[in-house]
Amino acid sequence: MAAASHGPVVILAGGGALPERLARALQGRGREVRIIAFRGFTAWRLSRRADAVVDLLDIRRALNLLASWSPAEVVLAGPVQRPGPAAALGALASFRNRDEIASLLASGDDRLLTSVIRLIEEQGHRVSGIDGLAPELLAPAGVMSTVTPDDEQRQSMALGFSLLGSLSPFDVGQAAVIAGRRVAAIEGPEGTDAMLKRVRRLWGTRRLPKSHHGMVLVKTAKEGQDLRVDLPAIGPRTVIRAAAAGVNGIAVGAGRTLVIDPEETLQEAERRRLFLVGVSPRGAA
Amino acid sequence: MAAASHGPVVILAGGGALPERLARALQGRGREVRIIAFRGFTAWRLSRRADAVVDLLDIRRALNLLASWSPAEVVLAGPVQRPGPAAALGALASFRNRDEIASLLASGDDRLLTSVIRLIEEQGHRVSGIDGLAPELLAPAGVMSTVTPDDEQRQSMALGFSLLGSLSPFDVGQAAVIAGRRVAAIEGPEGTDAMLKRVRRLWGTRRLPKSHHGMVLVKTAKEGQDLRVDLPAIGPRTVIRAAAAGVNGIAVGAGRTLVIDPEETLQEAERRRLFLVGVSPRGAA
Repeated sequence: MAAASHGPVVILAGGGALPERLARALQGRGREVRIIAFRGFTAWRLSRRADAVVDLLDIRRALNLLASWSPAEVVLAGPVQRPGPAAALGALASFRNRDEIASLLASGDDRLLTSVIRLIEEQGHRVSGIDGLAPELLAPAGVMSTVTPDDEQRQSMALGFSLLGSLSPFDVGQAAVIAGRRVAAIEGPEGTDAMLKRVRRLWGTRRLPKSHHGMVLVKTAKEGQDLRVDLPAIGPRTVIRAAAAGVNGIAVGAGRTLVIDPEETLQEAERRRLFLVGVSPRGAA
Repeated sequence: MAAASHGPVVILAGGGALPERLARALQGRGREVRIIAFRGFTAWRLSRRADAVVDLLDIRRALNLLASWSPAEVVLAGPVQRPGPAAALGALASFRNRDEIASLLASGDDRLLTSVIRLIEEQGHRVSGIDGLAPELLAPAGVMSTVTPDDEQRQSMALGFSLLGSLSPFDVGQAAVIAGRRVAAIEGPEGTDAMLKRVRRLWGTRRLPKSHHGMVLVKTAKEGQDLRVDLPAIGPRTVIRAAAAGVNGIAVGAGRTLVIDPEETLQEAERRRLFLVGVSPRGAA
C-alpha cells in the first residue's frame, strides 16, 4: 500500500475556516481534493460538501476511506478538540498497546497527534503539512503593516524568539508577550487569547508597569516542531485582543505561522496602529 | 568607608513576617541587629521596634544611616512593592544618570534591586543574602513530608527544574506546574498564587485533562540568580492553593527557596496529602 503519486489530497478537516481555505488553495493549484469531515468538529458548510463525515474516534473507518482513495497526500487541518482520555483510549485500543496509550495520555496533545500521523503513515500514506502544500497560507517574511517596529521593539522581538527557542524542548505554548526586556507572559495550555487576557489584567499594575514602548507579542512554531502536527496561528481576534492588552506589535515566525484571514488581520492591525512582522528563523524581519 | 567586620547586621525590612524571623535568627546566632523599616511596607509590629523608619524613596537618608552605623553586613528582607516609575526616577535621580534610570525602568524588578544593591556597595558596605546569614530559613534537601513522590512524579519534578533552568537567562517567574510530561503553566509577573489559580481553572478541562498522577509545582531560584536580590518563597498559602489547583506535590530548590512558616507549611501539606521536597541544585532530592 504505497502512497499513490497522482491520487487526491485528502484533508482531514477539523474546525474553523482553515480546511475550506486549504481546499480552495489546493484546487487553485490544480490538485484533486477529498475531504473527510469529523462529526461535531468540521464547520457545517464544509461538512455538507465533504466526501465523507466520520466520527472522530472511528479511526478504522477513516483509515478504510484512505485505503480506498489511494491519496497522494493526506493533510490535517483545523483544530479538533481533544477527546476525553477514556474516549481516546477506546479509539486507539485496537491499534496501540495499553502502555503506549497510557503514556500518550499523560503527555501533551502533540504526542497524541504525532501518534495519529504515525498510524496513517503505517498504512502506507504520505502525510504532508500545510506549509508544504499551500505555503501562501503562512505568514510571509518582512513587515506586513505600515507601522514598523523601532530598535527597542526589535530587541523585544529578538528576546521573545530566543525565549521561545529555549522552550522548544518542552511541551508548552508557542507564544509569549515581552515588555521591554521583561517577559510578561508565556503561553500555556490556556492558549494565546487567554494569555492576552492575563496580560491585559496585569498591564499597568505594579506587577507589570507600563513602559512607554509597550509590549510585543511573539508567536512561532517550536524549533524542530513537526508542522503537520501543530501550526501556530494568528488572526483578526489575536490583533484585537493583543491591542486591548497593551501590545504594540506582533511578530510571528515567517513560514511557520498561519495567518487566518490575512486581509482582516492586517486591517485590524492598521486600525489599532500595531505592527505585524514575519521573522525568518535565521533572524532579520 | 570599608565595611566594618564587627559592626551590626542591618536589615532593610520590607513587608511580611520574614524580616522579623531573620532578626530572631541572627540574634540567635549572637549577631547585633539593626533594622531600617520602610514606611508603609514593614509590618507595624516590627516598625515599632525598628532603629529607624524611612521613606522607601528616601535613599539618601537610608545611606546616611548605614554610614553612621558602619554595619558588618547589610541584608534586604521581605517584599517591597515596586514604586511607580516616576517615583523611582525621582529617588534615583541624584545617584544615577537619566539613561541608566530609563533603562532600569524598562527592565524587571531584578535589575532595579540589583542597582539598589550596587549603590549600597558603592558606599563601602557589604550586602549579604539570607542564604548566607541564616540558611536555616531555607528549604532543606530531601523529602519533608510523609507522602513521597513516586517515579513518575520525580520525572515531572526533573522536567520542571530543567524547564526553569532553560528560563534562567530570562527575566521571568521562577515557578512552573508540570502535569505528567506536560507544562501546565509557567509563572510570569502575576506570581505563584495567580498561576495556581489559572491552573485550577484549566485543570479538568480539555485544555488540561486530568491524568491519574496529578501535577507537581516546582519553584526555585534561577541559575546564577543573585539570592540577595530575589529569593523565591513558598508558605502555607502556596500549599493550600496548589492543592486546590490539583497539584499533588511541591518541589523546591534546596537552599535556594525560602519556606515561610515551615511548621504550618508542612502541616498543610500533610493535611492535603501533598509531598514537599527540597531538591539540591545537583539533582536528587
